[in-house]
Parts: sequence; structure tokens; C-alpha cells
Amino acid sequence: MTEPAASDAAASDAAASDAAASDAAASDAAAQVVVDDDLVHAVAELIEAGHRGLVLNLVADLRSADVASLLQHLPPDLARAAFRWLPEDITSSALPELESAERVDLLDGLSTADLVALIDPLATDDQADVLADVDVAQVDDVLVQLEDSQDVEALLSYGEDTAGGLMATEVVAVPTTATVAEATEAVRSNADAVDPVFAVYAVDLEGRLVGVVPLKRLLLSPAGRPVAEIAETDVVSVEPDLDQEEVARIMERYDLVALPVVSAGGRLLGRITIDDVVDVIREEAEEDLQRAVGITGEEELSSSVFAVSRGRIVWLMLGLAGAYVSGLVIIGFDQALQVAPVLALFIPIVMSTAGNAGIQSSAIAVQGLASGDLWRGDLARRLGKELAVGLLNGAMLAAALAAVVVVSGFGADTGRLALTAALALMIVIVLATLVGATVPLALSRAGIDPALAMGPFITVSNDILGLTIFFATATLLYL
Amino acid sequence: MTEPAASDAAASDAAASDAAASDAAASDAAAQVVVDDDLVHAVAELIEAGHRGLVLNLVADLRSADVASLLQHLPPDLARAAFRWLPEDITSSALPELESAERVDLLDGLSTADLVALIDPLATDDQADVLADVDVAQVDDVLVQLEDSQDVEALLSYGEDTAGGLMATEVVAVPTTATVAEATEAVRSNADAVDPVFAVYAVDLEGRLVGVVPLKRLLLSPAGRPVAEIAETDVVSVEPDLDQEEVARIMERYDLVALPVVSAGGRLLGRITIDDVVDVIREEAEEDLQRAVGITGEEELSSSVFAVSRGRIVWLMLGLAGAYVSGLVIIGFDQALQVAPVLALFIPIVMSTAGNAGIQSSAIAVQGLASGDLWRGDLARRLGKELAVGLLNGAMLAAALAAVVVVSGFGADTGRLALTAALALMIVIVLATLVGATVPLALSRAGIDPALAMGPFITVSNDILGLTIFFATATLLYL
Repeated sequence: MTEPAASDAAASDAAASDAAASDAAASDAAAQVVVDDDLVHAVAELIEAGHRGLVLNLVADLRSADVASLLQHLPPDLARAAFRWLPEDITSSALPELESAERVDLLDGLSTADLVALIDPLATDDQADVLADVDVAQVDDVLVQLEDSQDVEALLSYGEDTAGGLMATEVVAVPTTATVAEATEAVRSNADAVDPVFAVYAVDLEGRLVGVVPLKRLLLSPAGRPVAEIAETDVVSVEPDLDQEEVARIMERYDLVALPVVSAGGRLLGRITIDDVVDVIREEAEEDLQRAVGITGEEELSSSVFAVSRGRIVWLMLGLAGAYVSGLVIIGFDQALQVAPVLALFIPIVMSTAGNAGIQSSAIAVQGLASGDLWRGDLARRLGKELAVGLLNGAMLAAALAAVVVVSGFGADTGRLALTAALALMIVIVLATLVGATVPLALSRAGIDPALAMGPFITVSNDILGLTIFFATATLLYL
Repeated sequence: MTEPAASDAAASDAAASDAAASDAAASDAAAQVVVDDDLVHAVAELIEAGHRGLVLNLVADLRSADVASLLQHLPPDLARAAFRWLPEDITSSALPELESAERVDLLDGLSTADLVALIDPLATDDQADVLADVDVAQVDDVLVQLEDSQDVEALLSYGEDTAGGLMATEVVAVPTTATVAEATEAVRSNADAVDPVFAVYAVDLEGRLVGVVPLKRLLLSPAGRPVAEIAETDVVSVEPDLDQEEVARIMERYDLVALPVVSAGGRLLGRITIDDVVDVIREEAEEDLQRAVGITGEEELSSSVFAVSRGRIVWLMLGLAGAYVSGLVIIGFDQALQVAPVLALFIPIVMSTAGNAGIQSSAIAVQGLASGDLWRGDLARRLGKELAVGLLNGAMLAAALAAVVVVSGFGADTGRLALTAALALMIVIVLATLVGATVPLALSRAGIDPALAMGPFITVSNDILGLTIFFATATLLYL
């Protein structure tokens, strides 16, 4: 037999979605995110009261990610206490789901034997990630005692932000000469180590990747058929030194759930699964936004006050220095300000509007570069478009500002003031828009993170540029 | 037989990765992103010269996402021409990969019959997405002619940013009473419609989801075993009206590649696959960044100049208005400026440093809310930490500024000037940091997109606040 096609179910359900009352119980069975403030408070109280059994009951029903979330929201001392007496299988599987700063804190002070017991059950990619947060004095001792120590050591040799740093060495691989039945047995014998399995990789005698058999095809093919006949040979693969952003772009672009990693010689080394790449995409987006607001390093919610301060102060100091230069520009034009003190009214307008326009065009360029849709070669087309946008928005803003000046009325000086403000604003906006669009592409070409272009650097440059243009215009028209 | 475990391959390869020269050919076989400027120019010239056969040869080797990328980078008229004479199977599969604005452009002017032929082969979720970009006058005519028109119409009834808007109705579902052999047959009979298959869903007589059988488990279980015995019953599922950000958080949190969607009554409606959620995560991150720089709507690289201008001008105008208020603050304190014109030096410093500090703390709060790691209940802990960071960084910046003032030397006034600047800066930074951390949580609680807190709104408020505090301090100390 076959089955009730879900497509029919969807259509009929949409038509009669009111018959819901009687089967509400089924909905309760659908598990969701269950860790919230209430649970955290309840667990915290139970830990403090020493009710270990009750805590265990609550935690045993949670998924690993939820255990991690719970640990992260508990007061640090209670989290450490719970982490030490919860069963190892629970804490071990929660480890990869924790933020790095939290993991460092929880692992601190554990014996080497405890660390080995916690880390050994994990997949090799997670083992490598967790080891990075172990006290450096203990890492080597832990490493040698791991079952897959050679693999994990190899993984640790790759850069953290590369394909090698993302991959796990556990894969199901069979010779091209294997049959479907033999490939199925390979899935079975690796069932614990490789989970989930999306495909079986076919390799030649030297271990080079030559094809991929999706699990569905394996399931539907006769047992005696050679794998070589059903493998897809047009395989997307990457080498271990490829940057993780590029890995993410490839998996995203081709809708892959697993991506094999091969050596320069084509030998199969491991695979990257989509769940790790989803984390990369989120991390890179967070990093871009942090660069945009002038945070260096990678601030996490659990970072210490000093780590947070250190990550933020660099650009605040540089911003302060830049703003001091802006201040000197203003002081430098004090003749104009003495002749017409009302010009000071336009200092914030020029500064903030130029900054806003510039950061808008740079954000679009940074996003295009991050998603891979914008190429460095697209510069001319991009500038043409941004010029048009800058002229259009500059004209509207200049007109609005001139109108405000005229309506406010500044006596006999109104006309000249409106002209000065509108003209300067127009020039400043067009320039800021073009600078914002150009700098990310230039940085990318120079191998620098283009997201820096959205940071205080560009804002400060635009401020200095904007104020200079404004006061130069004013000097021209007033002195 | 089993197979050479890849974990061995990885270790031995890392040790002997120098034997690569002889098998470099294998590496060439690994397909990568192949669309670049050169290919685009070559194809453009071939189209202009009318060499259809050669273009077809080049395009036939590309994956759908690469065809889409090629169309997106060709000059618009050539893209339209190519889209019209390339084979329907190629253009059809490229459609879901295109940006929305590009799709509108390419589909414009096609006959209803052509649109049906292009859209019908797609999965239902893609059909619904593409239909959203079809000329409204044609949508109904196209819809009724689609094979799955009922399903697609049901999908179109869900909000674009909800689970229902993301899901496809194609799933493999079997009754709980089915055997493994019957479930395998169900995979086979749905092989064309459901691709990739990750799991078979077990449903009761009313079509309610009761369990999930991962494909690996199906592959490894005896043919006669009932599905009910091997299904996982702890199933994460969502209802169709759930926001897509929440869907992404759930799939990300539990490392899911497919997520079933059920009605309020628990009836299986369809499934969401991770590839669509990866796009959501990227889109939501892009949207957050665009909100942060004051872009309304969703600007794409292919958006028209007028659409771009419209998306950017709203906040530029509001920013202009806010900056005008800042200007009025400066003018309002002109007494202080007349007594000590050198105070103007500090206007940009107060403005830009307050803005930078505020946007830093708001960015962290926005990211925490987006990833689900920061809860609204965390406000007190968050504020305590941001207060500490604000005090620390404020003290350092105030000290640096005071030092600069002292070193620069402003005659007899140096002491008072250093005190004014340092004191005002310190207060402004602490306040801006706290405001930046609070506003996203407050917006989130009010059901407003917290990313708006990073936008011009907060910058402008901080400017006005900062200038007022600075001049109030100056007035106190100078007048």
C-alpha cells in the first residue's frame, strides 16, 4: 500500500480547520522550546534546596540545547554546581551547545579524567571545538586519552574559521565496487558514529571521493546493484583550508545538508553538516553587525565585563580622536561662526545626515559581498546606482532643509542661509553615499573585512568631510 | 564487507598530505561556484551575437543557482532575452533561486500558458513564492491551471513570514500501521515530488502526526516491522501561523533538517526544510542590519533606484528633523558658546561618542533577542553589566579627553575645560550605554522590531541628550 498523501491532507485541512477542539491533546504532544524564566527559577530554587532528584527529573526530559540554555541562564555558581553532579551523558551532550565563554567557566577546574569522560562521546568536530575551551595546561593530557585523538588532533590543526575547522571526520564511505547491500551494512556499522546520515560516499582505492549516494537512492535500489552505478558523480566538495564564509555560501547556494571535505589530492577527509553552517551564518552576520557598530573580537552575552569593555573601547577611542578632528574643523572655521553664529545650527545636521546616508549605502554593499551576490567587478554599476540614489535623496533632503530655513525665517539672511545649507547638504550626501558604496568593495579587494566600512571609521570620515564641505561653502558665501 | 572508515583516511592523510601531485586531476572534478565576471561577459557576447547553441552548451552544465546568478549579473535586456529562449526546465528550476525584484522583471509580459509551464514543475512552496511575483492580473488564471492549485492556494493564504509561508505540502506520510516495506514503497512513489527525503512521517487515521522515522532507521529496519515500533514519538513540530524567525530558532536550536508543520488539531500539513530556513536566517540578519542603518522595506541589489530611494529617505528625513533639534539645542546654549567659543570643539565629540556607545550596547541586545539567547526577563542582569561597561569605558574616554585638553593647553581655562568635557562625556556615555541596552528589550516587549533601536532614532535621541547634558554642564561651570 501507499499512504494518504499529505498534500490532500493540507487541502482538506485548510478547508475544515475548525474541527480542532476534540483533538487538542495531540497538539500538546508536539514538543517546543520549553526553557523559560519560570523553569530557570524553579530549577535554581531546587538546586539551592539540594533537591537533586527533582532537578534530574526536570532536566532528563530536556533536549541537549535546552539543557545548555538552562545552564546559561542559571546564576554562574548554581550552573557550575549542577554541571558537576548532573549525569555525564546529559552534560556531555549539552557541551557543544554552550557559548564559548560559558563553556570555559563550566569546564574550569575539572580533572583530566572528567574532561575525557565528557568529551570522548562527542563527534570529532565537537570534540575539537570543546577542547579549544579547555585550560591550555590540560589540553594535551586530555587529547591523548581520547579514542579519536589522532582525528581530533588533525582537526585542531586547521584554522577555526575554515572548512577543516567545521568538519567531522565521521562519514560513511564505501569503495565504488561495493554493492547496495554492502553500503547499507556500512551505514549500519557506523550508525552510532555518524548521525544523521544523509548520504554514503563512494571512494576509489586511494580513498579519493568519486561519488555520492543519497540515502533515498540507497533505500530504493536493489541490494545487488553496484554503488558505482547509482552514485552521483557531479559532487560539490571543498578543501579544508577554505574559509567558513565561503563554505556557508556554497551550502546555501546549492541547498546542501552535507558537504564532503577533500584533500588537495581529492582524498575524502570528512564532511560538514548544515547545522554547523547555520551557526556560521548566524555568527558571521553577528560579527558583521558588531564590526558595523565598532566592536572588535566577538562579544557574547556571557562575555565578562572586561572582555566587553576591551572589545568596545578601541573604536570608541578612535572615534573620540576622529571627533576631536571634527571639532578642530569647527574651531578652524570660527571666523564664519563669528560672522554668522546661526551656522552652528547646521553642525549636527551635516554630521548626522552624512553619516546616515553613508552607512546605508555601505550596509547594502557589505550584505551583497557577504551573500556572494555582489562581485568586486560590479563596482561601476553599483556606483552608478548609488550616485542616482544620492542625487535623488540629496535633492529631497536639501529641499526639505531649505524649506525649514525659509519657514523659520532668519531675517535678511534667510536666502543665503537656505542656499548654504541646501548646497552643502546636497554635496555631502552624494559624496557620503558614494564613499559608503566604494569602501566595502575596496576593503574586500584588499583582503580586509568589508564590514569595517560600516564602523566608526566611515562615520568619522564622513563627519570630517561633511563639516569641511559645509564650512567651506559657508566661507565662500559669507566671507 | 564494511569499508575504509573515513576517520582513518583523515588521520593518515593529514600525516602524508604531500602525495598530492599525481592525483591533482581528481580535484578538478570537484565542482565549485563557476559563475564569475568572465563567464557573464562571455555569455553576454554570445547572446548579443545570436549564438544560442553555444549559450545553451554553457548553461546546460550549470546548477540552478548558478543559472540564476548568471541571469542576475547579465544586463537586464540580455537576461530577459535569454530567459525567453532557454529551455523551460532550466529557467523553471532557476526561478526559485532568483531575487524577487529580478523575478518580477523576468516574468513580466509572459503569457499565462508560459507561466504555468514554468511554475508547475516546482515544489509547492516555491510555486507559492514565485506566484507572489507574478503580475496580479494573471495570478488567478495561472493558479487555477496548476496541478497542485488547491495546495498552492492554501499556502498563499498563510503570511509570507510564517511557518505556513515556508512549508511545502509535499511529504512522505504513512499510517502508523504500515510496515517498513510499505513505508519504503511510499518513499518510492513520492520520489519525484518529495526531494530530498529525510524522514517518513507516521500519521493516525485522522491524519494527525504521531511519529517520525528517519530514513536511516527505515533503511536499517526489517521489511516486516511496523512503522509504529521504530518511529520517534518525541517530535518537534510547529503550527502554520508561527513567525519564521521562531521557526529558524527552533530548527537551529535542535539541529533539524526538516520540521513538520501541523494544524492546531495536530494534523500534518507539510514540512519546512533547512535550505529555506537558511535563507530566512540570512534575510532576517540582513533585515536587522538594514533596520540598524535606517532602511525600511527590504532593499536588494536589484531593487530599482526609486525603490532604494524610498526605502532610505524616511529615516534620513526623520534623522534630519532630529538633527535640527540638536542644532536648536546648540543655538539655545549660545550664551555658553559666546563666553567660551572653544566649547564648540566638543560638539562632535559628545555627539559621536554617545552615538557609538549607545549603538554598541543596543547591537548586543538586538543580537541576543534574535538568537533567542537573551530573554526579556534578563533585563536587570543586562543593565547591571552594561552599567559596569559604561562606567569603565566612560572613565577611560573621559580621562583620555581630559588628557588631550590638558596637553593641548587652553591657558587659564584648561582645568575647567577638561573638567567640563570629562564630566559631560562620562555621564553621556553611561546614559547612552544604558539607553542602548534598554530600548531593544522595551521594543521587543511592545511587539516592535528591536532592530529599530539601532537606527537613526536612537542615534538622534542620544545626540540631543548628549548635547543637552554637555551644555548644561558647561553652563553650570561657566556661567
